Amino acid sequence: MSIVTIIGSGMMGSALAFPARENGNTVRLVGTPLDREIIECCRTSGQHPKFDRPFPAGVEYFQFEECMDALKNTDLVICGVSSFGVEWFADSVLPILPEVPVLSVTKGLLCQDDGSLIAYPHFWQKKLDSLNKKNELCAIGGPCTSYELVAHDQTLVAFCGKNPETLKRLQAIMTTSYYHIIPTTDVMGIESAVALKNGYALGIALTIGENFKRCGREELHYNSQAGVFLQATREMHRLVNHLGGTDESFYVGVGDLYVTVYGGRTRKVGILLGEGYTIDESLEKLQGVTLESLVVAGRVAEALRIQAEQGKIDLKDFPLLLHVDSIVTGKAPVNIPWDDFTVLS
Amino acid sequence: MSIVTIIGSGMMGSALAFPARENGNTVRLVGTPLDREIIECCRTSGQHPKFDRPFPAGVEYFQFEECMDALKNTDLVICGVSSFGVEWFADSVLPILPEVPVLSVTKGLLCQDDGSLIAYPHFWQKKLDSLNKKNELCAIGGPCTSYELVAHDQTLVAFCGKNPETLKRLQAIMTTSYYHIIPTTDVMGIESAVALKNGYALGIALTIGENFKRCGREELHYNSQAGVFLQATREMHRLVNHLGGTDESFYVGVGDLYVTVYGGRTRKVGILLGEGYTIDESLEKLQGVTLESLVVAGRVAEALRIQAEQGKIDLKDFPLLLHVDSIVTGKAPVNIPWDDFTVLS
Repeated sequence: MSIVTIIGSGMMGSALAFPARENGNTVRLVGTPLDREIIECCRTSGQHPKFDRPFPAGVEYFQFEECMDALKNTDLVICGVSSFGVEWFADSVLPILPEVPVLSVTKGLLCQDDGSLIAYPHFWQKKLDSLNKKNELCAIGGPCTSYELVAHDQTLVAFCGKNPETLKRLQAIMTTSYYHIIPTTDVMGIESAVALKNGYALGIALTIGENFKRCGREELHYNSQAGVFLQATREMHRLVNHLGGTDESFYVGVGDLYVTVYGGRTRKVGILLGEGYTIDESLEKLQGVTLESLVVAGRVAEALRIQAEQGKIDLKDFPLLLHVDSIVTGKAPVNIPWDDFTVLS
Repeated sequence: MSIVTIIGSGMMGSALAFPARENGNTVRLVGTPLDREIIECCRTSGQHPKFDRPFPAGVEYFQFEECMDALKNTDLVICGVSSFGVEWFADSVLPILPEVPVLSVTKGLLCQDDGSLIAYPHFWQKKLDSLNKKNELCAIGGPCTSYELVAHDQTLVAFCGKNPETLKRLQAIMTTSYYHIIPTTDVMGIESAVALKNGYALGIALTIGENFKRCGREELHYNSQAGVFLQATREMHRLVNHLGGTDESFYVGVGDLYVTVYGGRTRKVGILLGEGYTIDESLEKLQGVTLESLVVAGRVAEALRIQAEQGKIDLKDFPLLLHVDSIVTGKAPVNIPWDDFTVLS
């Protein structure tokens, strides 16, 4: 059995304590400086304040100032910070880590000046290089909502990283009867697929809002959701391939897209937009909502525009993503470009 | 404007009267000999007995013995029979048709003795050849439930056929502000993708039933649905490519899979199976349910087994389809092979 140290006690990081601990490992959950109350709550009640059931017995909890204790003899560090904590993780955590693999749940892409997109592991790799440290960076992608993992819903995700042997070891540490892991060396494919799904899930949710407005909230419609899902699948496949990813990663992204349409915050924003609220009104109504999905859509659209100017892609191939971006970044009203979806590439 | 004759007044055939008529065409809906009461009801009430709103004004209704009147000067025949009516359509309708295009909504695949799969248009083509008739056979595939089309939900489908000019003409006849058409010459790709989705939708619905059994019907879970959706996407892409179809058709199939998971009968069977009922018990509980989805899964599995013996495919690449077939054809209990889903091809 291994020692697993999870840094960041948000929902997803904390949820991973379940398979990790239930598989017999020592599990240490470390809060960031923003997680102080969460860790106190866990210590008192044995339960995360946002989960409806307690952690498995034996999970240990640490405030960030106790991080060095939590890292002692550890075999695996899981990075559970949100995308807003990516730089903090680079500056405050990477320097103090022992040279064990790091498995990240943080999803997102960064647009570079030249229009290329990089994933967080690539960003962190630069920091590790500058520190002359050799930690292997791996990441988790795929359809998994934290509260359902906590509920032991059967879950299938991908672990990506450069080294197949390391992935096999992480797979052995984390696999349970309900947590199933696809190991893959296609880091960019997984990272881009699971990042892209956010913007596309918003696009699909627009149709839910449009139908609520048109027919009331009781009548459920799926044709239009499925139509946009079709287009999202098409654009996501193109993008993943364009970014050098594999079909396998694209499938992981499609699964992730499916769960994200039902998964909460992105859906809520999309529904409000579809009902006719502006992006500002929608965010106002959902105070406190995390903006990760919106940020990613904007970054990818920005990258695509630069690449289109360079002649590397044709913007006509991505009408859905650009429409989502026009709503989110350009504050445009919803007007799904259905006719553009009927054109084969 | 054109004259559109729809033969078969089941739900999907009848639903197409809405965009056809609202686009300004003359629309004639003809019942099969089994549709006698439906046509009488339409004549009396102007509404299909299974729809919650009336047909657009001006749709004309015909019993099958009046079919020749309905075919007079027609520009397009839509075949709306179920897969159980495929042979009837070949024997009783193809011979009496004027040489206009036929657009079919009937979905399914037939397994030939050598393990190859053919779609209904190919089956009908043989009949047309024997009659020395030149009707062009086209087909509709993609995410569209009839009652939502009737409700004017935004809908995106594909029309497939050999001749791009004909497809353009059909697209012009049928496109409305809510019915959007992708024209494609990839007949086998579309037909196989939309047929395959039936078996895969059943596979996804198994997880809904399993969770109902485990957590009650109130608690909804999506991780496991999304995990099986991921695997379904992977297998469907492989199969569509193997059968000579394009990625574009695969996307249409994925959209269709999405809507089918929510669409009624296949979902209901899958949920009952997931809750632990045998296939016989499930069908008993859903008396009158159409078995099309189950039939297709069995036929494809049969074809794959023959092709595997011939060394053309590897059955290990299709664990989900084979599991669905083992339940449906082999009456095996549900035991989703999650571990098989973690292996990259």
